[in-house]
Formats: sequence, structure tokens, C-alpha cells
Amino acid sequence: MVFMPEEKKYRLAARAANPKGTVVKVKGLEIGSKKIVVMAGPCAVESEQQLLEAALAVKKAGASVLRASAFKPRTSPYGFQGLGEKGLKLIKKVSSEAGLVSETEPVDTRHVKLVSGYVDILRVGARNMTNFELLKEVGKSGKPVILKNGISSTAEEFLLAAEYILKEGNRNVILCYRGTKGFEPATRFALDISIVPWLKRETHLPVIVDPSHGSGNSGLVPQVSMAAIAAGSDGLMVEVHPKPERALSDSAQQLTPAQFSRLMLGLGPVAKSVGRVF
Amino acid sequence: MVFMPEEKKYRLAARAANPKGTVVKVKGLEIGSKKIVVMAGPCAVESEQQLLEAALAVKKAGASVLRASAFKPRTSPYGFQGLGEKGLKLIKKVSSEAGLVSETEPVDTRHVKLVSGYVDILRVGARNMTNFELLKEVGKSGKPVILKNGISSTAEEFLLAAEYILKEGNRNVILCYRGTKGFEPATRFALDISIVPWLKRETHLPVIVDPSHGSGNSGLVPQVSMAAIAAGSDGLMVEVHPKPERALSDSAQQLTPAQFSRLMLGLGPVAKSVGRVF
Amino acid sequence: MVFMPEEKKYRLAARAANPKGTVVKVKGLEIGSKKIVVMAGPCAVESEQQLLEAALAVKKAGASVLRASAFKPRTSPYGFQGLGEKGLKLIKKVSSEAGLVSETEPVDTRHVKLVSGYVDILRVGARNMTNFELLKEVGKSGKPVILKNGISSTAEEFLLAAEYILKEGNRNVILCYRGTKGFEPATRFALDISIVPWLKRETHLPVIVDPSHGSGNSGLVPQVSMAAIAAGSDGLMVEVHPKPERALSDSAQQLTPAQFSRLMLGLGPVAKSVGRVF
Amino acid sequence: MVFMPEEKKYRLAARAANPKGTVVKVKGLEIGSKKIVVMAGPCAVESEQQLLEAALAVKKAGASVLRASAFKPRTSPYGFQGLGEKGLKLIKKVSSEAGLVSETEPVDTRHVKLVSGYVDILRVGARNMTNFELLKEVGKSGKPVILKNGISSTAEEFLLAAEYILKEGNRNVILCYRGTKGFEPATRFALDISIVPWLKRETHLPVIVDPSHGSGNSGLVPQVSMAAIAAGSDGLMVEVHPKPERALSDSAQQLTPAQFSRLMLGLGPVAKSVGRVF
Repeated sequence: MVFMPEEKKYRLAARAANPKGTVVKVKGLEIGSKKIVVMAGPCAVESEQQLLEAALAVKKAGASVLRASAFKPRTSPYGFQGLGEKGLKLIKKVSSEAGLVSETEPVDTRHVKLVSGYVDILRVGARNMTNFELLKEVGKSGKPVILKNGISSTAEEFLLAAEYILKEGNRNVILCYRGTKGFEPATRFALDISIVPWLKRETHLPVIVDPSHGSGNSGLVPQVSMAAIAAGSDGLMVEVHPKPERALSDSAQQLTPAQFSRLMLGLGPVAKSVGRVF
Repeated sequence: MVFMPEEKKYRLAARAANPKGTVVKVKGLEIGSKKIVVMAGPCAVESEQQLLEAALAVKKAGASVLRASAFKPRTSPYGFQGLGEKGLKLIKKVSSEAGLVSETEPVDTRHVKLVSGYVDILRVGARNMTNFELLKEVGKSGKPVILKNGISSTAEEFLLAAEYILKEGNRNVILCYRGTKGFEPATRFALDISIVPWLKRETHLPVIVDPSHGSGNSGLVPQVSMAAIAAGSDGLMVEVHPKPERALSDSAQQLTPAQFSRLMLGLGPVAKSVGRVF
Repeated sequence: MVFMPEEKKYRLAARAANPKGTVVKVKGLEIGSKKIVVMAGPCAVESEQQLLEAALAVKKAGASVLRASAFKPRTSPYGFQGLGEKGLKLIKKVSSEAGLVSETEPVDTRHVKLVSGYVDILRVGARNMTNFELLKEVGKSGKPVILKNGISSTAEEFLLAAEYILKEGNRNVILCYRGTKGFEPATRFALDISIVPWLKRETHLPVIVDPSHGSGNSGLVPQVSMAAIAAGSDGLMVEVHPKPERALSDSAQQLTPAQFSRLMLGLGPVAKSVGRVF
Repeated sequence: MVFMPEEKKYRLAARAANPKGTVVKVKGLEIGSKKIVVMAGPCAVESEQQLLEAALAVKKAGASVLRASAFKPRTSPYGFQGLGEKGLKLIKKVSSEAGLVSETEPVDTRHVKLVSGYVDILRVGARNMTNFELLKEVGKSGKPVILKNGISSTAEEFLLAAEYILKEGNRNVILCYRGTKGFEPATRFALDISIVPWLKRETHLPVIVDPSHGSGNSGLVPQVSMAAIAAGSDGLMVEVHPKPERALSDSAQQLTPAQFSRLMLGLGPVAKSVGRVF
């Protein structure tokens, strides 16, 4: 068998496969339409009170989806690893109470069914973008999937990872660009803003941006969020925590509810200036 | 003598040195004020006709400064090296005819005086951000200076390069962020958008963005430009060529006059949405 | 609960946990002793004939371990994905016939038990270095583990990944350094040779180097292999294929049996020059 | 004029231009022959005593060239900038007393003639690899030139920089590979060892390696030096300071005379193991 490079390209993810663009629908919410969608919530579920406080705040400010992790992939085995199934139960309960669509991240193929029973949208985190068996499992799950780019993946590799999910028959894939690894100590990751219009041109899938991991710095999140919308992003995923300074992970980059509320007020005019609804 | 790390930080470039922010004034133009400033023109001066056509087009569309290089630092000694002093004369003549402020890049300490005689603003290109002798010379020139970041420089190193110029007594420094080198083949450089608000917070100097080198792709320049303004940039430097496909350098990233004109129309609403004048 | 950064460091992987250095023993073979260990074989099992030809050749030239993948994590879903369990059976059969210790890579937590039934050593590939659930499973497997560094992981993150395995009670971890992602097109990955002595100083675990993925170029593999040994590596993992030009993956970097044989002849003197046995 | 990409490649630097390889000769010393050449000395000239102590020590240990900088390009304008012409005089005096060939770095086109009057070999530092006017000046100087790669330059760009020097009629160019910028905090630069055999294959010019800047860590310099020789390097440039802990720059990476002496003892056997003379 001879290696055929042309076999390697994405097909189902290519813009040509759906030139008008894909709109992912979940519980009445549309992602990829003219309306900007904001997903917000804490990095990790820590307790019912913490999650509820965050959920009510982000709902009030205009978010549609509650983001929260129950399983935390951590660089060190001694870091906080998440609440697991207990966390999933809290996400289900709290998102329902707050009237928000829910999402979370399964970090293992064996968790996909379990997680699918609790949330509306599955998330594949940056560390798992090249966990191809996991991509296949979320592809088979029937659930919409938010796919984050790997921190050292090219934009083409990002679309090829989406292709793994699409190939399983799951067309509800949302790309979340969160920047890539660079040498700059001032920011956590390099959020190369040109990638947003490049993705919008190359693929029909909705594209959202994560300004929290991109900048790694709550003070920069508002400007980065506005830039993402101006660049053509269909939405945002923003980390919000009732008390960021006490968060068990990503302490420096989570917004307070008050900061998030101000951010949302600022986003409206920018969205309208580029022809979007907010 | 003992090495003292604390001596290494920037002082004159720090926000604290001028908390209200520096406005660079040149021929009645203000850079760093509420009004967005757009610099535009060809990568290199190729002929009087080419430069005049570009200058009249960018002036008509709303640009204030004519950008153009007479000396071209090129990776290969066999690449087009620029018109030299002949190019300087054309820049002076054409910018005057078009009613634009002029700028260009001296690439050697020995050119600084010569170039200063022809243009309003000196530019230090990315390849020369660590050419400290050149930084000192432009610092002594008495001319306003646009300083581009090196492609592998950190944001702190960028401010330390500005410090070299400021230390010579020249307070008219404009920072131009043009992205840094990464591994992504889809874009020419990684334009880490978080750097814009980071710079605005850390320094009092005006910050502009170069979306042309950042994306390396004329099709992405409009969205990247809007993102830059949304992120807080005080202006833009955009490459425009009457016939980009025939340009002697940077062919893929230069806009046509018509594309530039559309870009300028789109920028106004974004600028206003973040409280700027356009 | 307050986040405690000091909890994040590696302990079990630290040199202090076993100052004399760990020797991993498997079927009479010692990895981490004075003797250099060479693992070699094709990127992927393609057929019994291909694997046997490679195995006999590398055995004859002095290798001790047969490397071969049955599951192939591939960037594109349309790339060759490996022979799966059929491949595992071939690895078991052929390694036994050739008198070689066997190793291969499980790419999913659900495969660990299956794979453990067929081979002597489990390998965690670069794409899975941050698949923490997989790290835990191979930690519980009771099998020695070769852990490759992620292409964008720091050396500290590499040791923290090892810590995940060690923490499950599995002390038989072999680190395989295969370079990281950079911007250089001349080589496939940046094989930062300083990392080898850094690892040997920081950890007690055996360290081997993969010159095939590091350089991505069969013509450079011999020099890189010699450099790795001179830098203090305890061994090598080299890709060898009977007919590299017809390989289903990694065609450019696999050596022919003849090239591998010459490489092995050259390695002996270098190993001896730094006090090793070959 | 149409842009012609084929014009951009290196010609004079290509291996084909001198298939047998170039040997640079200076004061009876041959660089690029079978014999390994070691250049050593302090990062910067600080005083006559410091330089003489270093020079006598490295000469005694077997080095042939005294390395030392009189002009220091520093990231911060507040860092030690070197002794300037006073330093040049010390280099001339001390190298003569110690019986060593001398080299140093001019950091500006205007210094080239001055520096050429004091030393045997000119060095172009990493920060100036893309200072094309400086490359032209050292090309015209008639002096042998050590060209270090830029920290974010590709290997091809490195050879194109050499081409600038060769094109001026100066055939005595020695390439010094010192690694490139990466994300790894454990080492100062990524010394991608595959680049050494790649350069030896692509160009006829002598190639030496700088293990001091590459690793940034005196404890790693010996292993990296041995690896460089094993990989095919024609020599080394090593930083040695009588009292590294009191050095005005690069304190962490300079060897003591005793460490250097042990390094030299270790290098001989490695050099011989790959067929070189030491």
C-alpha cells in the first residue's frame, strides 16, 4: 500500500461541504447563526453554592451556556482533579435551575456515556484534541461537541480533529479557538487572531473563542473578547468564578460576576458594529 | 561589579512614567489620542507611478500616513533590496503631493541622518529591534520613531527596545505590534491579540498594529484590523499596492486600493463601538 | 480549599527518590544500566513478512527490543490507522521468533489490558503524554512503560506525566525524549540535546532518545544517535523498515536494515568513549 | 519586474560550490579540517586580569581561539554594555600573550574597520544575523567571520545570511550554531542537534557549536559539547570565566577553568570515536 497524502485532508469539515455555514441547535439555542452566543462559568465545579452563584450571575448578564468542568486534566497528579460524577450531578441540577444549556468535558473514552447522561454539550479539551479514540466516541455520542484546539496544533490539524468527529456521523461540532503555545511570558497562550477569519473561511462549522485561556489574565479578557467578536467569532467561552482568588484552578484568568457583567455590556456595541445580533 | 537584575527593567517606557498616555504629534497629526490613525502604502517603493497611485488611494480612503520602504532588508541577498536614496526622494515628493505624513525605515546606523532628511517618521523594522546601535541613533535623530517588535521578542523585550530610544531623549516612540514567529503555516506570524491590551496597560506609548505582516494574507487583513481596533489599538499600519500580484515583495498580503477602501468603511463602526473617533 | 503550587512538583520521579538511578528489568534486559539499549523496528506493523524482516535485521545488528505500533494515532481520520489486535498478535509472534523483547502503544484506556496480554513493555506516545487517564491505566498495568514526551511539553511537564504512572505504584518507567515542536522546516522536531543531561540530573529514571522522530530524516539519524549517546542517553529507539520508501507511515525517517547496521557499528566507539558498554 | 522565488536560494554557501568542504585558515590554525577546534573565553572582557586568567587557562587546556566580547548587545539599555575599544586593546594584548587566535563581535557597521584592526576573526552575533548591512561590511572586511544563527532563524535563513557575506567575496565564513528560541524553561535555547549534520550536508562551510548559549547552564555544557562533536561539529565555542558567579553577563552558563579543563579531557575520546583529531 502506498501512502497517499491527498487522503489526509479534511472533507466533511471543509467550507465546501456546507457553504452556507452550519448552525448547531441545542434546546432552542442556535450556535453559528447571526446571534453571538456566550458560554460562561467556572473553570471547575467546586461546590453547589459556587456553581449556582456563577450560573445565576452569567445568566443574568446574558450568557446562554454554563461552562464547568467536573473532570480536570491537570499537569500534576497532585493538582485538584475535579469532583467527577458528583460534579456532573451539580452541573445538571444548577444549569436547569438557572435556565442555561450545559456543557462539560469527558477526559476518557470510558466517561463519554456517563457524561452524555448529564449535559447538553460535550467538550473536548485542548489536551485531548489528538486523543483520537475520544474524538471517535464523542462522534458516536449523538451530542453536540465543542472541540478546543490543541496547544501545539496547526489550524489544519484542528480541522482534521473535527473531521474525526464528523466522520462518525455527528455534524454538530463547534470549534473553540483558545490559542497555542508560544514563548511569550506576558500571556498564557498566543491567541493568533488571524486564525478566526481563517477558520470561518475554511470551514462551515461555528467558531467560538476562549479569551480566558488565550490571555490567561482576567484584566485582558474584555479586550480580547471584543477583538474575537470583531474578527468574526460566533461566540465566546469565558471563565467566571464568584471568587476567582479562591478558585482551585485557573485563578488568574477567571472573571468576577461584576467584571463579566461589564464585559457583556461592552460586547453588544462591538457585535452590532460587525453586523451581528447580541 | 555585581550584576543587578533590577537594573534591567524599563522605566521611561513604563505607564507610570506618563500615566495619561503619550500622544505623538507630527505635522498636526496626533498618534495615541482618541482618534484612530491609519498608516498605509506599499511594502516597497517601486516607482513614482506605483507610489503615487497608492498614496492617492489611501489618502482618499482616510489614511493619514504613507508607509513605504526605500531600503528593504531581505532574507536573501538575491531578493529585491529597494531603491535606496532614489526611493527616499520619491517618498518625500509623493507624500507631499498626496498630503500625507511620511515614514520609512533606515536599516543601518549610517542611513539615519540621510533618511531623516527625507521623511517625517523613522521606522525600525522587526529585524532591527535588537540592533541596539540603530535604536540609539534613531533615539538621537529628533524624529518620531515607529518601533516594530522583533519576530521572536517578548513583550518585555519590546519595551526594553523602546527604552533604548527613550533613553536618548526621544519621547516620540510609537509601538507597532506585528506578531511573532510560531509554528502555524496558515498565518505568516502569530498576532497574539492579548498583547495589545497588555501593552496599553504596561506603557504610555501609542500602540498600533500591522495586520498585513501579522496575517500575511490579504483576505484576512480586514477582520484582523477590526480586531486590533476592538482590542484597543491606537491605529494600524496596512500594506496597500495598486497591483499586489505584481509587487516586488509581500505580494500575498498587500491590499488593492478597493479592498483598502472597503476595510476603512468597516473600521469606522468598530472604532466607535469601543469609544474611539475614526 | 486553597490552591497550593508546591503540591504540583514531581516527587517520585525526582533524582532524590532514587539517587543511584533506576534500572528497569524486563526478561533479563536491563534499561538504565551501563549498557546502551537499542530498540528498533518499523513505525507500524504492516504485515508478518515486513515485521519479521525488520525484527531479524535489527536483532542481528544488536538491538534488544522490537519497536512496532499496532494502533496508529494519525492526524487525519483517512490515514492508515494500524492493524489493531491482528498487529498485536504479529508483534508477539515475531518478537518471540527473533528473540527480542517487545513493546507497543495502547492509544486508549480500554486497550491497556488487551495490549498488556501481548507485549513486554507498554509505550505512551507523544500525543498521549497528557492523556492522564491513560497514564493512570498503564500505571496500574504492572508492565514497564516507555513514556514519550509531548511535542509541546516542557521537561518538567514530562516528569509530571511520569509521576502519574509512578504514583500508581509502577516504578518501571523509561523516558523517551523525541524532541518538541518548533518553527524549523529542515527537521521534523527540535531535538534539544541539552534536555538529555538535564533529565539525567533531575530524575533517576532511564532516558532514551528517539532520533527518528527527532530529525524526521533518515540521513540525519546516525549523527543524532551518536550525539544522544554522547550526551548521556541510556539508549535509543530507532525506526527501521525493510523498504522505507513503501512504508505506510513515517516513510522519510525509517532506516533500511543496511543503514541501521552501519549505525550500530558507529555507535559502539562513541558509547565506549563516554564510559558506556555497547 | 516579477518576483522570482528561485533567485532567493543560497548558491555560494551550498555544498555543491565546494564539495570537499572549506577549511578556514587563520594564523596557521585550520577550522573545518579533521582536527576539532575549540574557541573559549569569557562572555565579555571585564578587565585585563580577568581576560588573561581566562586566556591562559583555556590555552593550557587546549583551546586555540580566545573568545571575548568588547561590545555587548544587551536587551536592556541599563545592562553592562561592554568596554568598547578599551576591550579591543585588551583582547589584542592578551591573545598575543597567551598565544591564541583572537575573535570578537562588532555590533555596528561603523565598528567593522576598528574591530578588524584588533582581532583575527570577526564574529556576527545572533541578534545581528539579519542585520544585512553588517553582513555586507564583514563580507568586505577581508577577515574570517564567525556567523551565529539568529534565535528565530531557520537553517535555510542561516545559510542565506552566510550568502550575504560570501557574496562580498569573503570565503572565510564559519557557521556557529547556538540554538533557537523555544518554549522550554529548563534550557536557555533549543539546541536542535539534527541541525549540525543537516548543515554539514547542505553547506561546505565549517560548522561549530556553542554549547554555552544553547544550554544556558554550565552543568549541561560538557554533555552538550560531547554531543556536538559526535554529531559532526568541527569545533566548539565555550564560555569560560575565572569566576563565573561574579561575571557581568551570562553568569549561569560560563565554566570555571577547572570545569573547562575536565570538559577538554572528555572531548578527546569522543572526537576520536567519530574519526576526528583532537
